[in-house]
Amino acid sequence: MSVLTVGTVAFDDIETPFGRAEKVIGGACTYISWAASYFVNDIRLTSVIGNDFPNEEIKELESRGVNMQGLKLIENGKTFFWAGRYHSNMNQRDTLVTDLNVLDDFDPELPESYKDSKYVMLGNLTPDIQARVLEQLTAPKLVVLDTMNFWMDVAMDKLKEVISKIDVLTINDEEARQLSGEYSLVRAAEKIFEMGPKFLVVKKGEHGALLLAPNEIFYVPALPLAEVKDPTGAGDTFAGGFIGYLAKTDDISFENMKRAVVYGSAMASFCVEEFSLGKLKALDQEMISERIGKFVEITSFSL
Amino acid sequence: MSVLTVGTVAFDDIETPFGRAEKVIGGACTYISWAASYFVNDIRLTSVIGNDFPNEEIKELESRGVNMQGLKLIENGKTFFWAGRYHSNMNQRDTLVTDLNVLDDFDPELPESYKDSKYVMLGNLTPDIQARVLEQLTAPKLVVLDTMNFWMDVAMDKLKEVISKIDVLTINDEEARQLSGEYSLVRAAEKIFEMGPKFLVVKKGEHGALLLAPNEIFYVPALPLAEVKDPTGAGDTFAGGFIGYLAKTDDISFENMKRAVVYGSAMASFCVEEFSLGKLKALDQEMISERIGKFVEITSFSL
Repeated sequence: MSVLTVGTVAFDDIETPFGRAEKVIGGACTYISWAASYFVNDIRLTSVIGNDFPNEEIKELESRGVNMQGLKLIENGKTFFWAGRYHSNMNQRDTLVTDLNVLDDFDPELPESYKDSKYVMLGNLTPDIQARVLEQLTAPKLVVLDTMNFWMDVAMDKLKEVISKIDVLTINDEEARQLSGEYSLVRAAEKIFEMGPKFLVVKKGEHGALLLAPNEIFYVPALPLAEVKDPTGAGDTFAGGFIGYLAKTDDISFENMKRAVVYGSAMASFCVEEFSLGKLKALDQEMISERIGKFVEITSFSL
Repeated sequence: MSVLTVGTVAFDDIETPFGRAEKVIGGACTYISWAASYFVNDIRLTSVIGNDFPNEEIKELESRGVNMQGLKLIENGKTFFWAGRYHSNMNQRDTLVTDLNVLDDFDPELPESYKDSKYVMLGNLTPDIQARVLEQLTAPKLVVLDTMNFWMDVAMDKLKEVISKIDVLTINDEEARQLSGEYSLVRAAEKIFEMGPKFLVVKKGEHGALLLAPNEIFYVPALPLAEVKDPTGAGDTFAGGFIGYLAKTDDISFENMKRAVVYGSAMASFCVEEFSLGKLKALDQEMISERIGKFVEITSFSL
């Protein structure tokens, strides 16, 4: 099935306790699309770049089945730039620079061929842009939305309006608490279901991910890794694996969502092992199957 | 099989975002013994109290098969007192008061009948006291040691000496990093195995627990709960369930340790639902089985 991906395409400067990388390729839409490309080959990317963005990166995504008709190129524009530094606790980071550049007046107009997309992954962007994309879709089967605390701080009403129209919300534990006003994630989920979504994915970084639906809970741990180099993009890579697996299997039951969460976690576990897209570009189906096997191994017990 | 429990018996003042409790019963040894008592009835408690400690609490533990010969009563002494306040993030807390009182010159002398104990749970105490207990044992089958960052700060050498003589170390993720000097928990475990232990349990509070052995990893999530009232004693309750289950089954293979970690997590999930021992005293086997079923439910997926 078709997957629509929406989000940033970016340059990142990244500093972690284990090294640094300058002006590397980043952006939610990039990570989502790369991760999803291991599951489906009808991916429709929606984003904006300046003419400083390397053409070979675009070609590479195209060669993986990613449609680039929805990638707007702004002549004489500069691509979105983000710089961040991770704490020794890699679950926390400081944003050093956010240069919106071409993103500043991005108004996504979907190509005609995108409008019938079935599986939709709205990466973290202003709720306005997310809403604009949604209203152009004719018959989406499943809409997943990622967002962050920043939009809760500055645009809560608009955010809640978009959230009321989606199926799956992916946020982290602190954001789930902020959005719902509830400390318990079980209670937070109940409140969020009242807002519209039927499923909630709570991303907890190195502590794994929770999938909740009314009266259903599934908790997949993160894979403990010998080396974590750069957590940037892990959440988006998770989302890409998640929606990619769902689109491939075209089954949105809770049982299948559980599998999708495991596949998303497996993709994210690769992402953090190298800076930028280093590891994500170098995968194959065998490596993914083997990694899934590790998730089975670390979570299995018999009574 | 017999279980030896060593640690504090205490009064606690506790403040959480959800309420407060004053001068309630606490202490590592108390939580460990209560949790273990649901699995075995040959528990040998080792601790010290003042004559302010209520006799009915002692009688209650005795009625559950806990031997009190090793509980030293100091006439005119005051029982150990701890006061703490939890942050809105319940995974963090500030210690407000620590009155050692009778604990100040506690030198545990094991009753003759304790010396052949097979399963040993050394609760968090000075490494000196933990070492003193160890040297009095004639043939322990499995020694589990709990400790904390404080002892790493003030008595690292003595702590490492004790750690070299035990089988299972239970600490939290930050402590595993401090003890090993490694950020990755996989690498931290490798370093810790070089120090002596054959198993490492990393307690992550609301994020679950990791069990590691050389080339083996198992990760059990914590059960997401609608209500968490008081996390005090959760780690000790985990330890009590863990050692209780191992002693009951008398099997220290990795496969059985995985089950023990699930049972420990189930006991801890009860502990946090009420202040002090409120929930832990009110359990039965059916409630425990049902709770174990929930852990199966939230972790199971099929490919």
